Formats: sequence, structure tokens, C-alpha cells
Amino acid sequence: VMTVVSKVTSFGKKAGKIGADDPRKVIHGVKVGIALTLVSLFYYTRPLYDGVGGCALWAVMTVVVVFEFTVGGCLYKGINRAVATSTAGTLAVGIHWIASKSGEKVEPIILSSSVFLLASAATFSRFIPNIKARFDYGITIFILTFSLVAVSGYRVDELLRLAQVRICTIAIGIAICLVVCVLVRPVWAGQELHLLVSRNMDKLADSLEGLVEDYFMKDKKVEGEVSCSQRSQGYKNVLNSKASEDSQANLARWEPGHGKFGFKHPWSQYLKVGAAMRYCAYCMEALNGCINSEIQAPEHMKRHLRDVCMRLSLGSSKVLKEISSSVKSMKESRSIQVLVGEMNDAVEELQVALRSLPKQLTQSPAAAAEAATIEKRHCVPATTISLMEVMPLFTAVSLLIEVSERVGG
Amino acid sequence: VMTVVSKVTSFGKKAGKIGADDPRKVIHGVKVGIALTLVSLFYYTRPLYDGVGGCALWAVMTVVVVFEFTVGGCLYKGINRAVATSTAGTLAVGIHWIASKSGEKVEPIILSSSVFLLASAATFSRFIPNIKARFDYGITIFILTFSLVAVSGYRVDELLRLAQVRICTIAIGIAICLVVCVLVRPVWAGQELHLLVSRNMDKLADSLEGLVEDYFMKDKKVEGEVSCSQRSQGYKNVLNSKASEDSQANLARWEPGHGKFGFKHPWSQYLKVGAAMRYCAYCMEALNGCINSEIQAPEHMKRHLRDVCMRLSLGSSKVLKEISSSVKSMKESRSIQVLVGEMNDAVEELQVALRSLPKQLTQSPAAAAEAATIEKRHCVPATTISLMEVMPLFTAVSLLIEVSERVGG
Repeated sequence: VMTVVSKVTSFGKKAGKIGADDPRKVIHGVKVGIALTLVSLFYYTRPLYDGVGGCALWAVMTVVVVFEFTVGGCLYKGINRAVATSTAGTLAVGIHWIASKSGEKVEPIILSSSVFLLASAATFSRFIPNIKARFDYGITIFILTFSLVAVSGYRVDELLRLAQVRICTIAIGIAICLVVCVLVRPVWAGQELHLLVSRNMDKLADSLEGLVEDYFMKDKKVEGEVSCSQRSQGYKNVLNSKASEDSQANLARWEPGHGKFGFKHPWSQYLKVGAAMRYCAYCMEALNGCINSEIQAPEHMKRHLRDVCMRLSLGSSKVLKEISSSVKSMKESRSIQVLVGEMNDAVEELQVALRSLPKQLTQSPAAAAEAATIEKRHCVPATTISLMEVMPLFTAVSLLIEVSERVGG
Repeated sequence: VMTVVSKVTSFGKKAGKIGADDPRKVIHGVKVGIALTLVSLFYYTRPLYDGVGGCALWAVMTVVVVFEFTVGGCLYKGINRAVATSTAGTLAVGIHWIASKSGEKVEPIILSSSVFLLASAATFSRFIPNIKARFDYGITIFILTFSLVAVSGYRVDELLRLAQVRICTIAIGIAICLVVCVLVRPVWAGQELHLLVSRNMDKLADSLEGLVEDYFMKDKKVEGEVSCSQRSQGYKNVLNSKASEDSQANLARWEPGHGKFGFKHPWSQYLKVGAAMRYCAYCMEALNGCINSEIQAPEHMKRHLRDVCMRLSLGSSKVLKEISSSVKSMKESRSIQVLVGEMNDAVEELQVALRSLPKQLTQSPAAAAEAATIEKRHCVPATTISLMEVMPLFTAVSLLIEVSERVGG
């Protein structure tokens, strides 16, 4: 009994934490409740009951399956459902009519084979990436509606009346979904994507600073070390961001203009920026590996490179943060050129510092030098990789300047 | 007209290519067709028509939404649907009974508020990761069934009869799905995951060899260069493999034992191996950046390191391929220890080679040495990163030995 109780409480705590982290999730739950209650109230109102009540089932079903977290998701499913239901219904009624004209024996054969062929073809088409991204749900509904109508034993004139009522209820369901979704604290997929990209940029900037700091400060035990190394792990969220970025960009395409986003907002640019950021994150993962490697460079090496590396990482993270804030505000940043210039200066300083390293080595006694160089390998990548990072950064910079030019004032 | 025709033909070609690449996708389409035709034939058979025919709608709907590409997906949806429908139905009938006892005025209030509360709570619970992974579809069906039953104006005894018929048709639908899914060329999610992991390992091995070869052979224009650099880009598929691995591992949990996989196959181990492989792929992305960097190391440097680097990459890729084939055959490999030993030898050789580098530098004239070292930075990471790769490789090795011990003979 105690384990069950403790499990329930830990589950409750987890749920509470999710709700506290993102209250919109709680609000989403409430919104679904509102939409469903509206449909059921609709049903209880007598005059409407007599009209479309018999098919209220379809309105409820529509609300349950169409209501999504973001407006884009809601629109995607709503439009797909509406279009798929009407085209599949029309097609099925047409085939029904042909079948009914061709005699009682052939009728089931025509109907069954049409269901077989269309269902097979439609299911296969879901494997084509473009179609899957935009019409996956629509195809399911298409197969469903077509088979239902084709299989049903009704006559054509009955079917037409039924189709009318059914499309009407589905339209009501979709309308209720959209109204609740847009009016009650809407969550726009586009905005989510926008925030995700700028948040990821901030995370990268923090991580970059944190990683380099961790590396050079490792021996001086600083207080608050945990928070520091936690900060430096933020890039890990960026590593696997592709799936969520792709899906949000897909949904954002369905959304009309809202807020600062125009109707034809360049969502695909966000994906490019996202890819550039992931590339940065991959480099940082490699950098992280160097930093946590067992073999460490000797102290005097580190000291030699510390300041300039710190300056470079600070410069890079400043550039990232500036881009992130310019993405957030959708304005071209004025200081970005200056910051990029500073970062480039830091790169050159690092190159100078590295150039002077071998001199130090030749000056020190041969044996010590040799020992040092074995370990130098583990120091050098740490610095050269941060150089490497600068390259994708440039890509990101140029892409982002493009985006902010297209988007912002 | 011409553009439409050319679009249609290019679309047809694309679809044909997808079908040719993976005939199972075509077979899946045919399987859905078979399942739907079976249901419709079921419907046309008169005696059955009189029994459950009126609810055949539910059987068709079940087949359309439950049928998935893999057996695991089919089982996941089928079990979720069955359990959710029955629990939600029972709960709704219970609340209906309570509401009907409490007077006509209070009845709609009780029903509406129960719909509101349950729908909100259930929708929110979908945000909890564990529940989302296992019961996402079940919760949708739970909300749907509960609202449908609660909203419907039927009396309790009518409801019970209806529920019986409906559950019966849904059971028929699920049974047809499972039979077709398992008997006609089944695709097991577990096997897919298994193959994906070993295929990704092969890709990593090929890429590693290819990348290092590309780097050191760049100047000698070899024939068949394109195929070589295509080979070396295979690791890019591994970078974003997390989503598909996670979903397949989730589905594989629902599958019973099949083929060489026991009932409690350690699917979570595959995820760990997958994570280790992704880490390798991140390092290779960084390595790729070094190789394509504009500044290249001077020839004599490259020559100095070429042989030992090639040996190391060959050794690593041999280890990867050996692990991959031992995963494929699910047998512990005997030669793996030898290969790992060879790889470690190569690592040590590389360390020796690197140690002798600075000596060469000091021997050459000062100016040349300086110029060389600027560029050395771009050579060194190429080799040190392949050293770095060895570490996650060890992780992968140890994990895989674990897996093969648990799984294999």
C-alpha cells in the first residue's frame, strides 16, 4: 500500500511540476474540456438536437481528434478533415451510383475492389515524405470516409441526405475547435518555433561560455560549480532539436498571419538556422569530450591560452546572444557587425598565441617538452575546436542576418 | 498542361523509387486494402449483418486507425483502443446511472461537468512523457468514448446493449488487423530497431574509413572519388536517429517474442547503444569540418601521420563492423577482443607519431616551422578527434558486449 501511495504522490509531483513549468499545458487541458462541453451543450439544446442531433457523434469525434496544442495543428487537422471528408464522400457516392446501376451481382465486387484499390494506394502515398508532412491525417480520414460510405448498405439518395448532415456536424465540430483554440489563450506553432530557435541560441551561447570557463577554471574550485556546469550542458537540448523544429515548421505553414508574423513568413529559414545551430552543438559535444578527457594539458600551457580562449568564447557567445535578441525582436541588430569583428579579432589573437606555443616548447628542456606535447594534443583540440565553431557561427550569422532582414523592420 | 504532366510523372517516379527501395511499403498498402476488404465482406454476409451490422461503422473505423506499419504499432493501438473503450465506456455508464438517479435538472450539469473534468485531466496527462510514450492513443480514445457515451441521450439499459455490440465490433476490427498484420509478411518494430542499429554501425564504420581516406588522399585524384565521398557521408543519417529509435523501441515493447527475440528483449539497451553511436557521429561531424576546412596542413605533416591514422581508422571501423555483425547474428564475437587490442595499438602508435612531430618542427628552419604550425592546428584535430572517437567507441564496445551477452547464444 505504501509503495502505491508513494508512487501516486511522486506521479502527482511530476505532473504538478510539468504544469508549473508550462502553465499553457494546463490551459490546453481546460480548453479541450471547454470545447467538448460546448459540443455537448449544443447537443442538449432541443431544436438543434432534432436537426443534426442524430449525428452529434461526429461533432464530438471531430472535437476530440482535431483539437491540438497549437493553432497550426488545429488548422492542419481541421482543414485536412474537412477536405478529405468531402472529397472521399463525393467519390464514394459516385462509385456507389455506378455500382447500383450495374446489377446486384457485380455491385459488391465493384465496391470491394474500389475500397481495396483506393485504400492500398492512399496508404502507400503516406510513405512519400512531402505528402506525409502535410496530408498524413487527411489521408487517414479519406480512407475512413470512403470505406464507410462504400461499405454502408444505403441507397444513393439516402447517402446524399446523410452526407449533408454529417458534413454539417463535422463543420460545427471544426468551428468550435478553431474558435476555442484561437480565442482562449492561443498557442501559435510559428511563435513556438520562433522562441525555440532564439532560446536554443541563448543556450548555445551560455554553454559555450560555460564549457570554456569550466575547462580553464577547473583547478580553482569555484563556488557554485554545479550551476556552472549545469549551464554548460544546455547545448545538449540542441543536439536533438530537429524533430520538434520540423514538426513546428510544418504546422506553422498552416497558420494565417498573427502578431509580428506575416502570412508568408519564411519558416524554412528557421530550419536552416536550426541546422546551423545543431552543427554548433555537435562541435560543442566534441569540445565537451576534450574537456572531460582524463589526460589534461599542463598548467603552463593552459595559462598561456586561457585569456585569449576566454575572450574568444565570450566574443562568440556575445554574437550568439546578439543574434538571438535580434531574432526575438525581429530587428536587424546594429552592433552585430562590431561584435563579429571583435570575435574575429579574438580568433586572430588565438592564432598568434598558438603560433608562439612551439617556441615555448623549444625553450624548455627536451624531456619536459616531450611530456608536454603528449598532453598538448588534449589541449589543442579544445582551442582549435572553438576555432572550428567559429565557422558554423559565420554560417549562422549570415543566415540570421538574412532572416532578420526578411522578417524584421 | 505540360507542367502538370511533368509534375505527375516526376511524382510517379518518386513514388516508384520509394516502392522499389522498400517493397514492404507497397506490401503495407496492400495489407491495409486486404484488411478493409475483409471487413466489408464481413459486412456483406447477411447473418452477420443482422447481428453486428448496424455498428459495422466501428469495425471499419477500427481497421483504418489501428492498422500500422509494424506489428508493435498495431498491437499498441489495438490494445490501447480496446482497454480505453471498455474502461471509458464502463465509467461513462456509471456516471450516466448516477446522473439519471439525481433528477432531470441536475442530470445535464453532472454529465457536462464530468465530461469537462475528465477531458481536461486526460488531455493534460498526455504531456507527461511516460504516459505519452505508451498510452497517447489510448487517452484519445478514452476521451472520445467517454464523451460519446456521456453526451448520448440514451437510457442506461439501452446503453448497455449498445456498448456490448460496439465492443464486439471493435474486437472484430482489432482481430482482423492483427491477423492480417502478423500473417501477411509481418514487419516487427523490434527487428527494425535491431537492423537500424547494426546498419547505422556499418555506416559509421564506412564513414570513418572514408573520411580519413578522403583527407589523406585528397591531392591524389583517385577515380571513383564521388562514390568515396558519398560513402563518407553516411554518418549524417546517424546524427538525427534519436526520434526513430525511440519510437521503434516504444513499439517493440508491445511485441511478443518473435524470431530470435525473446519476450523480454532488452530494448532499452539498443537506445544506449544508439546514444553512443550518435556521440561517435557528432565527433565525425567535427572531424568532417576539419577535413573540409580551407586551411590545410602541409604535405610532409600529412605524410608523417598518414599511415598511422589510416591504420587507426581501419582498426576502429573493423571493430565497429565486427560489433555490427555480432549484433546482427546475436552472437558474442570471439575476435572482438583481438580487434580492440589492434585498435589500441594503433592509438599508441599515433601517440608515438605525434610525439615525434615537434622534433621534426625544431629541426626544420624557424620560419618554415612557424608557418607549418599555424596550419598544424588544422591537422592535429583531424588526428586527435579520431583519438577522441575511440573513447565513445569503448563505451559502445562495452555496451554491445553486454547486449550480445544478454541476447546472443
